[in-house]
Amino acid sequence: MKAVSLYEANDFDDKAMKRLLVHDSPYMKILNFNFKAGQVLPVHSHDIDGEVCLTIVQGKGTFLGADDTGRPVKAGDVLITAIRDPHGLKATTDLRLLVTIAPPI
Amino acid sequence: MKAVSLYEANDFDDKAMKRLLVHDSPYMKILNFNFKAGQVLPVHSHDIDGEVCLTIVQGKGTFLGADDTGRPVKAGDVLITAIRDPHGLKATTDLRLLVTIAPPI
Repeated sequence: MKAVSLYEANDFDDKAMKRLLVHDSPYMKILNFNFKAGQVLPVHSHDIDGEVCLTIVQGKGTFLGADDTGRPVKAGDVLITAIRDPHGLKATTDLRLLVTIAPPI
Repeated sequence: MKAVSLYEANDFDDKAMKRLLVHDSPYMKILNFNFKAGQVLPVHSHDIDGEVCLTIVQGKGTFLGADDTGRPVKAGDVLITAIRDPHGLKATTDLRLLVTIAPPI
């Protein structure tokens, strides 16, 4: 069993989103991205099968999709999207994001 | 894209842990279990390949494994275990748990 405390294992960086690899196995890849308010994970996609689950652990932000509309998100929100569909995130406040990818890429 | 707010989509039940199916696909199964303080997900396992990720969304509790020792867990903790290894959880406070299983079972 592996245990990671997101609040202890990763912090914030004024320059850019701060990335932590939480877990990587044949079954799933788990990442934690910490955003200072205003920082952005640009919209991107990969032309492969599989899904990404975005869990907002702390803070508020905007989910960015194929269009520019954006969807407000907050702590406790869980978003699931195909890896091949455009996805990104912009933080409104300092924000901790957990990303689960299956199958792992 | 699917979006679920755990704080709006599921609440608590004085009688037993309250379960919400968040997502089920060929890639992953995502569940949310809400525990009132003292409620327990008994230790269990399945004799199949794959992993379970437990994310503590809110509250404090104890992760239960093969032995009786228990490991304190709190909001922001992420635990990954093989599906075939014994795992369970007891809530110390009211607790929201997100469970991701890949491949889905």
